[in-house]
Amino acid sequence: MAAGDRVLGLDVGATKFRIAVAGPDGRAERTVESPTRARRGPEAVIEELIGRLSAVASATTPRPTALGVGVAAQVDARGTVRFAPNLRWADVPLGARLEEGTGLPVRVLNDVRAATVAEWRLGAGRGATDLVCLFDGTGLGGGVVSGGRLLIGAGNTAGELGHLTVVSGGRRCTCPNAGCLEAYVGGWAIAARAREAARADAGGAARLVARAGGRLDGVTAEAVLTEAAAGDAFCGRLKAETREYLAAGLVGIANAFNPSTIVGGGGIFDGAPDLLSDALALARPRMLPSVGESLRLAPSQIGAGAVAIGAATWARGGLV
Amino acid sequence: MAAGDRVLGLDVGATKFRIAVAGPDGRAERTVESPTRARRGPEAVIEELIGRLSAVASATTPRPTALGVGVAAQVDARGTVRFAPNLRWADVPLGARLEEGTGLPVRVLNDVRAATVAEWRLGAGRGATDLVCLFDGTGLGGGVVSGGRLLIGAGNTAGELGHLTVVSGGRRCTCPNAGCLEAYVGGWAIAARAREAARADAGGAARLVARAGGRLDGVTAEAVLTEAAAGDAFCGRLKAETREYLAAGLVGIANAFNPSTIVGGGGIFDGAPDLLSDALALARPRMLPSVGESLRLAPSQIGAGAVAIGAATWARGGLV
Repeated sequence: MAAGDRVLGLDVGATKFRIAVAGPDGRAERTVESPTRARRGPEAVIEELIGRLSAVASATTPRPTALGVGVAAQVDARGTVRFAPNLRWADVPLGARLEEGTGLPVRVLNDVRAATVAEWRLGAGRGATDLVCLFDGTGLGGGVVSGGRLLIGAGNTAGELGHLTVVSGGRRCTCPNAGCLEAYVGGWAIAARAREAARADAGGAARLVARAGGRLDGVTAEAVLTEAAAGDAFCGRLKAETREYLAAGLVGIANAFNPSTIVGGGGIFDGAPDLLSDALALARPRMLPSVGESLRLAPSQIGAGAVAIGAATWARGGLV
Repeated sequence: MAAGDRVLGLDVGATKFRIAVAGPDGRAERTVESPTRARRGPEAVIEELIGRLSAVASATTPRPTALGVGVAAQVDARGTVRFAPNLRWADVPLGARLEEGTGLPVRVLNDVRAATVAEWRLGAGRGATDLVCLFDGTGLGGGVVSGGRLLIGAGNTAGELGHLTVVSGGRRCTCPNAGCLEAYVGGWAIAARAREAARADAGGAARLVARAGGRLDGVTAEAVLTEAAAGDAFCGRLKAETREYLAAGLVGIANAFNPSTIVGGGGIFDGAPDLLSDALALARPRMLPSVGESLRLAPSQIGAGAVAIGAATWARGGLV
């Protein structure tokens, strides 16, 4: 691919999609955003995506040579969305439809892996050959670069680090497993644990519940972490427990992958960066010595555009 | 490297070492074994290794072109043994000394990763590009091939799957962590759990303890698994608990690496193959669907020579 090429990146989220035109340096020269309106069903969404992508491609000089797509879904090796819980898509041949509709060669990958590529090539992981990205938002997603290559796996699903078991027989996850790291540390799980703890200790939880308008089901992970930072003891305990589970996960992740760098991002880690850095401080002396001693933590740098830009970088190729 | 080349493989264990001459097909044409006598210290052991390797090299036609070394140790990227608990070596420049002493180019890797290479290229994992090997003996070792490459990590330590946390805050491991998979499923850990359970239930443990000559400290993992197979209820419970912890680990390993194949070997899995296959049956429906549905289990095939043969294959190069 020539050095001056433009490549399109598409981030298909449940609430909005984003199209980025990646320039020769991989960074976004232009970005277009629009609501996804997933309720219309996959066919209508795909038709709109094709229309918008074609318009952006026509308006770009030189004309883009490829399209990379990141989607919050399990994606198979041929670019079919196996299952996207938030979009409510199942077995949607997204890659094939976009290829047909835009005339561009298309590569589709999971959104977290796309963001991992962005951090690796352009962000906090630049220069690393062994990198783990953890993005903690509603769920806890992961992506792994090992030996200078993004791990893909046999079914295009490698890197699901939120679904490492850290408590055998533990809390139910949204996946079929119990005791997953995500089931303790994901945003939904911090909120669920807080609600349970509040039911058992209404007095202790008073400040947190008041912040949620007096309604337990209004309690969020963000509120827990904000109140913890403000010195609330109840939320402080929840945060300390979360840190301990995260440390348990980090030890395993580091021993399994032996990365030089862990990049942390997503709403939870961006909002409470000490959660991850303190967990790593707990975890480091528990790692195998050769694993822990040279591991560094880096906050994510790319932000909201990471999925589209990472997908474009991926489509540009040469990364596996 | 020419197709007809011979390569030497060396397996340095705490009790014995093994030298294999790998033929053009990668398999052993000749094997030499000898006691390691580690008590003499690393210098004396290395001197003997150089003598034996040189003798084997001189007697081989065509003359070997490289030496691969597998050692039960943390090994750094330059072939220095950082820490080998059973050999009682620390910071021994094994690769450099053997290179100097034999005149051959030398590559050193951890013994479990060497066995992984053997199973991948010549054994149960032939043809797989995404493979996890788990060897359960005294400890639980792992090795990972992803996208057709052995994972190495930033410090040459990737693949330490025995040291994934499966019980946050759980049992002490021999490593600095607590709650490791190995601390429940490794041979030493099954024995330790059995001894603890026997202290709490002397009546239930009667058959197991009798088999150990009446001495609790004679209880082994092998004895537990043999008695469980023979129908002993106490050992059956221990085995069922072991299976549950192993299943928790398998779910995480599969979600993290998305392999097509898990190869199981080592004394524990070879002696009680149903332990691993039954654990996988428990684990499979708990994995992410695209991970679990096409995963297969394969018993290791290479056996005792795997480390030497795998190290030779690794030294032959072209595998990363």
